[in-house]
Amino acid sequence: MTASVPAYTVPSPEAVDALLSEVRFNSDGLITAIAQQHDSGEILMLAWMNADALRETLLTGRVCYWSRSRKGLWRKGETSGQMQKLVDLRVDCDGDAVLALVHQDGVACHTGRRNCFFRAIRDGAVVNVAEPLISEEELYGR
Amino acid sequence: MTASVPAYTVPSPEAVDALLSEVRFNSDGLITAIAQQHDSGEILMLAWMNADALRETLLTGRVCYWSRSRKGLWRKGETSGQMQKLVDLRVDCDGDAVLALVHQDGVACHTGRRNCFFRAIRDGAVVNVAEPLISEEELYGR
Repeated sequence: MTASVPAYTVPSPEAVDALLSEVRFNSDGLITAIAQQHDSGEILMLAWMNADALRETLLTGRVCYWSRSRKGLWRKGETSGQMQKLVDLRVDCDGDAVLALVHQDGVACHTGRRNCFFRAIRDGAVVNVAEPLISEEELYGR
Repeated sequence: MTASVPAYTVPSPEAVDALLSEVRFNSDGLITAIAQQHDSGEILMLAWMNADALRETLLTGRVCYWSRSRKGLWRKGETSGQMQKLVDLRVDCDGDAVLALVHQDGVACHTGRRNCFFRAIRDGAVVNVAEPLISEEELYGR
């Protein structure tokens, strides 16, 4: 079950600075970040990064977000073990969003689902279109 | 070159209300919206919706955003012709982002590229990893 993850080449600090200079952080110092499984194309989650999180992500190859609720760096997988290994990172045309192509270990969503986008309308009602692969207790109870 | 687009079933107004009640708009009344090509998985763009835009998207099957710069509804393709036909729409676990699975007519990016996420680090520099398929003049000059 070991998936093959393309090697990530850590860029130079100068290249990281150049990329950060093209990013337009909002008035809270944040940008939106989409995480997509690099091979299947599955959209895993949407979260936020500040400059420190983006820099750390690029320089370590492990995705780090900014937690707006905890007001701190959020190294994805630090508590749950469900890490995101970076494969590539793209900045959009107007510089206010990034796309992280990743390999997701396990599940991305805190509900234990593979991805966070699991609610949709079916037959006139809002339902869950995906089920958890692991319980929240298993994810966070260790 | 006519792609087969899965039929979109317009939900009842009650189902749309139920979905909107699960969405947590931010202090500006907005949520982030990701557009993904339904079959290839390509992430096309990230933009914003308010309640009216989300409702219109669901009830018409044509993706409508909120333009933060123009402060108005932004019916994708109205100016450029590059419409997004809705296939499905998902709300994420904490209700502050939606994923629109769409069929993109032509290109999504105002630069004429297929998608907006085209800047990345290569060999120590930030470069464009995709080229325009159509000029901005052709997109907007009609």
